[in-house]
Amino acid sequence: MTLNTTFTKELDVVEKLIKKDLNKENIISGLYKYIFKSSGKKMRARLSLISSSVIKHKDRYKLAAIIELLHTATLVHDDVVDNSPTRRGNKSVNSIWTNSHGVLIGDYIYSKAFILMVEIGNKNILEELANATNDISQGELMQLEAINNTNITLNKLKKISYYKTGRLFEASAKTGALLSRINKSYINNITECSKNLGILFQIKDDLLDYTNNLDLGKPSFQDLKEGKVTYPFFFAFKNADLEDQKKLKGILGNKKLSTKKAQLLIDNLNGIKKTQQLAEKYHIKTIKSAQKINNKAVCKEMIELANVAINREK
Amino acid sequence: MTLNTTFTKELDVVEKLIKKDLNKENIISGLYKYIFKSSGKKMRARLSLISSSVIKHKDRYKLAAIIELLHTATLVHDDVVDNSPTRRGNKSVNSIWTNSHGVLIGDYIYSKAFILMVEIGNKNILEELANATNDISQGELMQLEAINNTNITLNKLKKISYYKTGRLFEASAKTGALLSRINKSYINNITECSKNLGILFQIKDDLLDYTNNLDLGKPSFQDLKEGKVTYPFFFAFKNADLEDQKKLKGILGNKKLSTKKAQLLIDNLNGIKKTQQLAEKYHIKTIKSAQKINNKAVCKEMIELANVAINREK
Repeated sequence: MTLNTTFTKELDVVEKLIKKDLNKENIISGLYKYIFKSSGKKMRARLSLISSSVIKHKDRYKLAAIIELLHTATLVHDDVVDNSPTRRGNKSVNSIWTNSHGVLIGDYIYSKAFILMVEIGNKNILEELANATNDISQGELMQLEAINNTNITLNKLKKISYYKTGRLFEASAKTGALLSRINKSYINNITECSKNLGILFQIKDDLLDYTNNLDLGKPSFQDLKEGKVTYPFFFAFKNADLEDQKKLKGILGNKKLSTKKAQLLIDNLNGIKKTQQLAEKYHIKTIKSAQKINNKAVCKEMIELANVAINREK
Repeated sequence: MTLNTTFTKELDVVEKLIKKDLNKENIISGLYKYIFKSSGKKMRARLSLISSSVIKHKDRYKLAAIIELLHTATLVHDDVVDNSPTRRGNKSVNSIWTNSHGVLIGDYIYSKAFILMVEIGNKNILEELANATNDISQGELMQLEAINNTNITLNKLKKISYYKTGRLFEASAKTGALLSRINKSYINNITECSKNLGILFQIKDDLLDYTNNLDLGKPSFQDLKEGKVTYPFFFAFKNADLEDQKKLKGILGNKKLSTKKAQLLIDNLNGIKKTQQLAEKYHIKTIKSAQKINNKAVCKEMIELANVAINREK
């Protein structure tokens, strides 16, 4: 499965736009260049471009750049929050420089996105993106509360997946559609579809931390080591008797856990299987909502993305 | 010298507006309430109210609340950056909770300010505040680069003072004036005056770290201990011979420095006196630019604030 090359080419234009930031201060341009040196998948920017492809407004590349900037700012802050040593295969800002640099360059990128948003000057877009960034920070804060919390509910986990990931997917598609003032049913359908896609993306992300994946081969159990309760752990814990619950509590937040034992335990308690089922449920939800989009090309793209999301191995 | 009680009363309305945030998530409402439990001087919000007092627009309290939210977000992030244990006499968010909480609740407050800005919906105000927040992050990043840097220039120090402090003072007054679309000369004059006031504020802040002050009695030398080169150190270093430069390098960034020896050294090398002179220069600049404001009441307020700024002891 390969992604549509038209949008891939358009993403190069978006990348150039992002890299055009010319700050005269060495410390800022150095950090900025480093962060945007290696490009990620740009799923959210792609979503923005797909959504805005129906009626092509002059600002659609700028809007996609804004989305990518917002996403990158949250990643840089996340790396500080999670104390991550790496990002996209390179060392993270906080590990090469310091946490302080991560916090501040994140703020810089956030506010740069807001400057570009104001340039576009569409009130509905501004409103959606201001709300989305607020919701993302809420999702991240809720996730902090989920650390070492074995009593968390499935509803809360879903809310976290929506706020921290689904929300920006949703906003990417919605603002893309709002830009060209495409009709209401198109806006609603692509918004709903992208929200589901984002949640699917997050579920799959949680799953990849517990299963073999292309990047690392074996599972990294990063979430587990950080004490983050995500779907695989949640389902395993729900299925566990008191003895197994004790074992699970013993590995949660344990940086020196035996990955073999952890994998076996979570697997035996159906943690992986149940998470896969949830991913499949959201895959179907995404496709069903995609089919409601009354534009054939966009509908096809969204189904393609849903398939990429469920099948991805990194 | 007491500040105008009309604006002090108006600031209570602003505070109530800020506190009205009703988030259902305990973690968020808990952090939010904690942060806004103790109110600061609200200089920037006061400036906004003064500036918008000429023609009273219905959104002027909301705008002042936005300014205070933006300022608070930068403080919360600053505390993470500086690893500060306290803020406004209470423990900082990062010391009661964690750095992660500080980063994320800062993002939450930032984006909340943007939501309110979009509600006001004035493009010029949005533009000014998006640019100002971007400049503030630049100022903070430049300051990181100034750590342990004895080669820093006076121009760079002034740029840092402007970006990290003067810029939001300036934007507070400018957006207050923009809200009611007061005439261009009023906007320009109050903007220039507030920029000078903000720089004065920062110089005085740097000075208070080196001199006796009401809060702590003796100087805290926090900047010096963190290795931050500010005006008093800069001027002392410039005046020092090689031997004294060596001594100064020895205390810069030294958490266990002898405060008595440090005070004596910086004082003998005219670090304090020169900084006071710079503060006086900006005091005069502020007053001169205040006198250009063609509204008597506002002009009087600005002069009052300039006097408060130069005379403050905490």
